[in-house]
Amino acid sequence: MGLLTDLYQLRMMQGYYKTGKADDITVFERFYRINPYGSAYTIVAGVDHALDYLENLSFTADDIAYLKTLGGFQEDFLRYLQSFRFTGDVYAMPEGSVAFPGEPLFIVKARRIEAQLVETALSTFLNHESLIATKASRVRWAAKDDPVLEFGLRRAQGMDAGVFGARAAIIGGCDATSNVLAGKMFGAKVVGTMAHSWVMSFASEFEAFERFIELYPENAILVVDTFDTLTSGVPNAIKAFQLAKSRGIKLLRYGIRLDSGDLAYLSGEARRMLDSEGFTNAIISASNDLDEHLVQELKTQGAKITEWGVGTKLITGDGCAALGGVYKLAAEYDKAGNEIPKLKISENPEKVTNPGTKAVYRIYDKATGKIKVELITLRQESLSEIETLTVADETHPWKKMTLRAGSYEKREMLSLVMQGGRRLIPVANLAAIQAYTARELKTLWDESRRLVNPHPVKVDLSNVLCSLKKELINGMHGK
Amino acid sequence: MGLLTDLYQLRMMQGYYKTGKADDITVFERFYRINPYGSAYTIVAGVDHALDYLENLSFTADDIAYLKTLGGFQEDFLRYLQSFRFTGDVYAMPEGSVAFPGEPLFIVKARRIEAQLVETALSTFLNHESLIATKASRVRWAAKDDPVLEFGLRRAQGMDAGVFGARAAIIGGCDATSNVLAGKMFGAKVVGTMAHSWVMSFASEFEAFERFIELYPENAILVVDTFDTLTSGVPNAIKAFQLAKSRGIKLLRYGIRLDSGDLAYLSGEARRMLDSEGFTNAIISASNDLDEHLVQELKTQGAKITEWGVGTKLITGDGCAALGGVYKLAAEYDKAGNEIPKLKISENPEKVTNPGTKAVYRIYDKATGKIKVELITLRQESLSEIETLTVADETHPWKKMTLRAGSYEKREMLSLVMQGGRRLIPVANLAAIQAYTARELKTLWDESRRLVNPHPVKVDLSNVLCSLKKELINGMHGK
Repeated sequence: MGLLTDLYQLRMMQGYYKTGKADDITVFERFYRINPYGSAYTIVAGVDHALDYLENLSFTADDIAYLKTLGGFQEDFLRYLQSFRFTGDVYAMPEGSVAFPGEPLFIVKARRIEAQLVETALSTFLNHESLIATKASRVRWAAKDDPVLEFGLRRAQGMDAGVFGARAAIIGGCDATSNVLAGKMFGAKVVGTMAHSWVMSFASEFEAFERFIELYPENAILVVDTFDTLTSGVPNAIKAFQLAKSRGIKLLRYGIRLDSGDLAYLSGEARRMLDSEGFTNAIISASNDLDEHLVQELKTQGAKITEWGVGTKLITGDGCAALGGVYKLAAEYDKAGNEIPKLKISENPEKVTNPGTKAVYRIYDKATGKIKVELITLRQESLSEIETLTVADETHPWKKMTLRAGSYEKREMLSLVMQGGRRLIPVANLAAIQAYTARELKTLWDESRRLVNPHPVKVDLSNVLCSLKKELINGMHGK
Repeated sequence: MGLLTDLYQLRMMQGYYKTGKADDITVFERFYRINPYGSAYTIVAGVDHALDYLENLSFTADDIAYLKTLGGFQEDFLRYLQSFRFTGDVYAMPEGSVAFPGEPLFIVKARRIEAQLVETALSTFLNHESLIATKASRVRWAAKDDPVLEFGLRRAQGMDAGVFGARAAIIGGCDATSNVLAGKMFGAKVVGTMAHSWVMSFASEFEAFERFIELYPENAILVVDTFDTLTSGVPNAIKAFQLAKSRGIKLLRYGIRLDSGDLAYLSGEARRMLDSEGFTNAIISASNDLDEHLVQELKTQGAKITEWGVGTKLITGDGCAALGGVYKLAAEYDKAGNEIPKLKISENPEKVTNPGTKAVYRIYDKATGKIKVELITLRQESLSEIETLTVADETHPWKKMTLRAGSYEKREMLSLVMQGGRRLIPVANLAAIQAYTARELKTLWDESRRLVNPHPVKVDLSNVLCSLKKELINGMHGK
């Protein structure tokens, strides 16, 4: 995994090595500037993957031989890489947390040479998995209490996009995935129906259905649009269910899948046809370029769909194919162990970073458990200032008021999850993360979960951090 | 890799196994219906990856133990999977070919049980890699003869998206990638400059530049927007180049990288400043959310950028995050070895598939070497009908005319690349594929390469294929 990086990281590493800067302790923080999809939040995912990467990071002899062929790398530096391990500390939000723009989510405190290398891969994992988890949470919101199934592997951007994407989709609220490898790797629940090719492999649609039910009476969802949904598929499905019943086959989970045509109309007609034959508990599953917006609109139209298969648009984060999370130097330590806060300025004011090692406090309304405000502070700050913070009103989050003592609870979001290169937390259990994410999403006001133009969650800097930032900016202008 | 599939494939496989259909020989073909990004073509990529997958496909004891835990799989079928190998044939277009909607690109002729399993992973690889290669070819077109560098790993949808995406980007016309692992795996040329964190690691921007040039005189591209591009970055870069010159350091590849602000304005000013100090051959590299449209517009505006770093929008296929390639049953063989053509109808007429095992003929204009028309035929057809085909005029591809004997050349696009599960072609050389793709792109009229609203390339069905299709549709309506 050592080579899963940009070449410039290795060139800079050698530069630090050669200029005596390799062992300086630095603090880099990951954050993102904009929520994806016009959402008011982002779900943090990929933390477990990132820690695995850090714990196992090394260079093989092959890797080093390859670097030698590139030229520009010197023997002493390549020898150093032979025994390279990541030995730093990591503070992170728990995987599955909701988070907001500008908040540090994942802080790496490590030797400069180590912290530099890991930027690229950490960004890849955390950007990708957070993007898909957030998309899934939006589909989950649109589908209300209906099951949502992740079907996207064949359209994913490569194997990892499919496998880690399926995991992220489960975190965001999908009930199961079609992806068997994701099932094996992460314990995700896997599901599957049948494809058109099954139907086309038999002499008739009816025979294809009959055989399938015989094989899988416990889970027989029949795809009904191979020929024509309402004149062929649904009638043949009903006939096959009736035949099974007459033979005493006990159907457990059974029903149909719609995969083309107008899903609102077809599901309504299919429901009527199934109900009139007594199959009132037959599942009507739908798939075909679904996303959160189409699911919501179909439900608003009264579509009789009971289960949603979401593929391409979920697994690729349709509408926002990349989360632009960044990894910025926030501080370094001098030889005496004093922290020197660092800041990156920019012509674009929103791109100026926040200096120093930080903490993120989440302030909840005590009565409702909803998030009132987020506060980014320096890590060593005392928090008395929260008492006088100007934040949103309990019932009207868009109105401002001063926080009343006793009306809120606070929680520190970042905790030490890796120390000296060793994980402090066990490999996460996927179902537990999913349950945590569901609880996290409930801490958002409904106004902030809306799919379109949601109310933003306020993120404030503490007065101390704000002053430090201004001071550093002023100092730079003098430079 | 056996589990890199959708659960329904394994359930259908068991179904074929139990109903005596497993060993029927079937023909599945991969094609796509719509070019991505509003393009008039798609570059076929991922063929090598797909063949590797097929050649190495198997189930480990662990995989089988996992499937057992799912329930629904029976002992005899799981035993069969223990020795599963792909033993079929593959016909494919050469990797790097340009191709058009509806054309079979990759045909699998195999036992039904094998052909069914491989649908998902083949789709993942071929959809993803074709998507990125096509995007890269558009950036290549916009950048004209300037170097284009792929920088997207940190924003890719997972590791494979970054690594195989970098390979696809090279196929489509990128000159190099920042992705070191892609360099090692595929022999792609790798490049790298420096990040803001390098500059921030020194007491001053100038010192950071000076040290970097000392370390890397052969390749010193300095990022100049850490503080302020025109008042700090470029002047410090010039000072550092001058110092190096005065010390007799020979700069080979040197220059600056712009990563924020208005790239047209800043590159013009930077060019003027560099030129006035004699650094007329200094590279001006730019990166910051570039895609084909912005590259084209910046060039049209006369931006003085000499090298383009393209990241997020290339590696994620921005604008079309998934190529909707599909894999459809086109034929099966009866016990006597006769081919039975198969067709999938649909409520959407454009989704009706073409039956039978097919060939794709490309008809070139002899004088210019440009593509006149594509012809999809049944594999066993004689091609006399090409002589009387109605196709585009040589000089005005949007006008129709009858093809004149002797005025064209034809080429069959699909060839047998795997037989009985064994590759017939060696692992592809990336540089060779890239060169082939560049030649392929030259066979398109400029009208069909335009980024917006390009002229579509005509794809025709042979009369024989067309008749067969109508006949099968009519037969189904009687069903």
